[in-house]
Amino acid sequence: MANVPVQRMSKLLAKTLRDDPADAEVLSHKLLVRAGYVRRTAAGIWSWLPLGARVLANVERIVREEMDAIGAQEVVLPVLLPREPYEATGRWNEYGGELFRLQDRKGGDYLLGPTHEEIFTLLVKDQASSYKDLPVILYQIQSKFRDEARPRAGILRGREFLMKDSYSFDTEDEGLASSYALHRAAYQRIYERLGLDYRIVAATAGAMGGSRSEEFLAPAEAGEDTFADCPNCDFAANTEAVRYEPTPVDGSAVPALEEIPTPDTPTIETLAASLGVPASATLKNLLVKVDGEIVAVGVPGDREVDMGKVEDHFAPAAVELVTAEDFVGRPDLVRGYVGPQGLGEKVKYIADPRVAPGTGWITGANKEHTHAKNVVAGRDFEVDEYVDVVVVQEGDPCPQCGAGLKLDRAIEIGHIFQLGRKYADALKLDVLGQNGKPVRVTMGSYGIGVSRAVAALAEQTADEHGLCWPKEIAPADVHVVAAGKALQTELALDVAEKLSAAGVRVLVDDRAGVSPGVKFTDAELIGVPQILVAGRRSADGVLELKDRKTGEREELTVEEAIARLTA
Amino acid sequence: MANVPVQRMSKLLAKTLRDDPADAEVLSHKLLVRAGYVRRTAAGIWSWLPLGARVLANVERIVREEMDAIGAQEVVLPVLLPREPYEATGRWNEYGGELFRLQDRKGGDYLLGPTHEEIFTLLVKDQASSYKDLPVILYQIQSKFRDEARPRAGILRGREFLMKDSYSFDTEDEGLASSYALHRAAYQRIYERLGLDYRIVAATAGAMGGSRSEEFLAPAEAGEDTFADCPNCDFAANTEAVRYEPTPVDGSAVPALEEIPTPDTPTIETLAASLGVPASATLKNLLVKVDGEIVAVGVPGDREVDMGKVEDHFAPAAVELVTAEDFVGRPDLVRGYVGPQGLGEKVKYIADPRVAPGTGWITGANKEHTHAKNVVAGRDFEVDEYVDVVVVQEGDPCPQCGAGLKLDRAIEIGHIFQLGRKYADALKLDVLGQNGKPVRVTMGSYGIGVSRAVAALAEQTADEHGLCWPKEIAPADVHVVAAGKALQTELALDVAEKLSAAGVRVLVDDRAGVSPGVKFTDAELIGVPQILVAGRRSADGVLELKDRKTGEREELTVEEAIARLTA
Repeated sequence: MANVPVQRMSKLLAKTLRDDPADAEVLSHKLLVRAGYVRRTAAGIWSWLPLGARVLANVERIVREEMDAIGAQEVVLPVLLPREPYEATGRWNEYGGELFRLQDRKGGDYLLGPTHEEIFTLLVKDQASSYKDLPVILYQIQSKFRDEARPRAGILRGREFLMKDSYSFDTEDEGLASSYALHRAAYQRIYERLGLDYRIVAATAGAMGGSRSEEFLAPAEAGEDTFADCPNCDFAANTEAVRYEPTPVDGSAVPALEEIPTPDTPTIETLAASLGVPASATLKNLLVKVDGEIVAVGVPGDREVDMGKVEDHFAPAAVELVTAEDFVGRPDLVRGYVGPQGLGEKVKYIADPRVAPGTGWITGANKEHTHAKNVVAGRDFEVDEYVDVVVVQEGDPCPQCGAGLKLDRAIEIGHIFQLGRKYADALKLDVLGQNGKPVRVTMGSYGIGVSRAVAALAEQTADEHGLCWPKEIAPADVHVVAAGKALQTELALDVAEKLSAAGVRVLVDDRAGVSPGVKFTDAELIGVPQILVAGRRSADGVLELKDRKTGEREELTVEEAIARLTA
Repeated sequence: MANVPVQRMSKLLAKTLRDDPADAEVLSHKLLVRAGYVRRTAAGIWSWLPLGARVLANVERIVREEMDAIGAQEVVLPVLLPREPYEATGRWNEYGGELFRLQDRKGGDYLLGPTHEEIFTLLVKDQASSYKDLPVILYQIQSKFRDEARPRAGILRGREFLMKDSYSFDTEDEGLASSYALHRAAYQRIYERLGLDYRIVAATAGAMGGSRSEEFLAPAEAGEDTFADCPNCDFAANTEAVRYEPTPVDGSAVPALEEIPTPDTPTIETLAASLGVPASATLKNLLVKVDGEIVAVGVPGDREVDMGKVEDHFAPAAVELVTAEDFVGRPDLVRGYVGPQGLGEKVKYIADPRVAPGTGWITGANKEHTHAKNVVAGRDFEVDEYVDVVVVQEGDPCPQCGAGLKLDRAIEIGHIFQLGRKYADALKLDVLGQNGKPVRVTMGSYGIGVSRAVAALAEQTADEHGLCWPKEIAPADVHVVAAGKALQTELALDVAEKLSAAGVRVLVDDRAGVSPGVKFTDAELIGVPQILVAGRRSADGVLELKDRKTGEREELTVEEAIARLTA
């Protein structure tokens, strides 16, 4: 491999800033901009400067090596994709506003790839004809596009981002499980090599479809995901994926349903206060429209409905909240006083598992200013379907062992899916099986956010002085600082060239007219793991080596420094 | 560097085809598809399968090494770009139908980057403040987009393609010349390492703007460019860039202008035939509209007008041919009988340099069925501007030495431009100069078509059996063929693993149920430089090594083969 030339700060396009950018909210955004790794080109669209491009390339290399190691084959698919295959799977519409759509000069419809399931499915359909051609795992490392409504958090959630996406193709479910397991293990090696602290948690499939899916989460304050972690057993899941089953209770001792006048209690808070009961004793009923049809959703009064879970349940149908107009001409729907016991036949009622058969509630009586108490599930009303739709709270019982769950914020850094046959069905991907008959192929889809991994690493490893990269990811192995005038600069450049010749990746701060203090501050900010300073003792050929992370310092001769850094 | 795992044909996504794809016209298109390197995803949009992705990565690596060697800094800029900077330079409109434009969910205008001059200019504006920060050369290797009206020739002219684009920033013209020279030399090294036969020729700047520009052309039948080459001196230029100056002659002996009746001679052919003169004695006058204004273009009757040159001359103004409607209400314009001596004052007259002052012509008399002879340039009509707009022909005189030019077809594989201050002016890119005053920056722009280089290499190196890659570019160093059953497959896999362990990149044809003949044909088609066959003498541990290019064969033991291939 060719040696990387020494990078001289005097010429490097990496202007550092003392102040945080005005629009930056999260640590990685602030530091990556301030240290000269990235610059914003448009909302959610970033340019990677030379230091950033190197970090990105290092992550790419590790991902590539581990994908190659599981026998995955690298390909390069286009970014600009035709509409038709996405129309066939329904994703052209399902993606909604997140999909960048465009037309070519002839009016043909295209999109910018958000993920490539459709195109890989068609590729394998063209290339594989027999079960003997499978299993196969294909991957690419490529820019992906999602028109986020609110691009934020810098690199963490951009509209154009670098991603490794891979796809597995098998004839049998066991094969898919095995391709999935290969990916899971490869991802573990990748995140370990990257030096990321991460958790594997159960996840929902979302718009991707399919059955089993897990996320790789990097715990960080800046994360947009929340995951639940059991302190007592191995349960861990994105809160979106925490699911409970209803546990029926004996409700036979509950007295008969009784209506009670409750003037001016349109909210749970006013109701609970007026009756002197906890909000958890009440049942609130949220009305939504699913593809235009009204559906009531019942949850305990003290819980919030997670609209993401509701949408996930009804996907691909569209879910909207009801508006005042939806109550017009509907005497069965009394706003603020809806109860499941009086809903019209046509209104579907779904409920949280906590509204289990036998449980009794205080809820709306379907009359103005009136509620009902002792309203028992299964006796006074029927639940059409139990669906877990509430927001998980700290201390909720672990669905596996019952212990109180702990909640944490995290960044989603990877996601693996057992898609099954959704895409193969839509695009008719079959191969000839062993018995000579066509077999429908089953697929997996696996993603790593390469650019996001850089931001996640920045979040997890930075300290109060700036970025602090693990060795394999850092833009250089050593940052040589010329802390002084001609003598120090000469020594710094000399040792830099010697280190480079020995295969060490070197960044050298040879800037004239910049004080040693500014150079030290910049070196801490940039976060190369070793800082080698040519300072006061340069005349004796003695340098100071500082460990960026621990702050440990040591004086070394040129030869000792080279020996240490090439060890 | 981690060893590349052995690629087994039994699992490799690389289905070979016996027949050329129906829509393929050029050799590289036919062979890259047939050998399983690429597949078409949409018109002009290609997917690179594993073998193709490797070749592409090899070209990328060479380009990267040589760019790093001239001190260029790699960056990663977005593909999705905001409209505003392109609006500021005028390219948002000038690009016309070739630019892919789109809107985001908020109605903001974006484009897919065709080249990134604007974005790099803004980046340097943000990063560089002083002359001390320059010169700087930045580059990226990235997918680029152009909505070609007629995408054709497979990879040679796609709508999405991989390109290395770089940009230099200097304060002085001499600095720009030096950055340009660095690129020119780096490109020479790159094309030599790639094993491409190429020529450097003078070129026009086109929509890019700027002054000096040269193209790197790979001579090939499939090429879309034509270049003129002087057999006598060092002159070489894209025919679009061949330019002559007018050479005045003494026209004083030419008799006075005389009108002659020429019924039914609306074309040069009918006119020349009826008068018994060569077409070269006549002057034909083409009418065009430049931003709506009529302009007449005079060229000798035997020459074709190169509309590309006309457009290039008037750019960024739009040039159209006149239609019948344009003659309505214009008695000064007699269709088929236009002569420069009778054009209205308002019609600008541009002429080919061959219509030099003093030359006499037969041309239209601006009356139906009438021409004029002895019409002398400078005496009977004035040329407003001499512009070289004719199609260059084989045998035209060399503008440098006068010898007959030779014309050849070629593929444009690189283009280097001295842009000057066009972009810096539009986007106000200044740095503080040595005297403390702002200096406007001067720029260069340099491109290599990475994916196109692969196709050009395929064109130049293929033979009647298929692709035939140079070693550094090939998807593997050796193609091991198991020509037989279990014994041969076992030996082939064994030697493949040993070679791989020794750092050799190996493709092994271990397919069961495929005849040796088919495997040999596929190996020739795929074009790895060395083919190692485990055949008849496998029981003795003897293999046959075949040079793909020369066809030379040699029997070797396993140990000898490993020694040879790792030498």
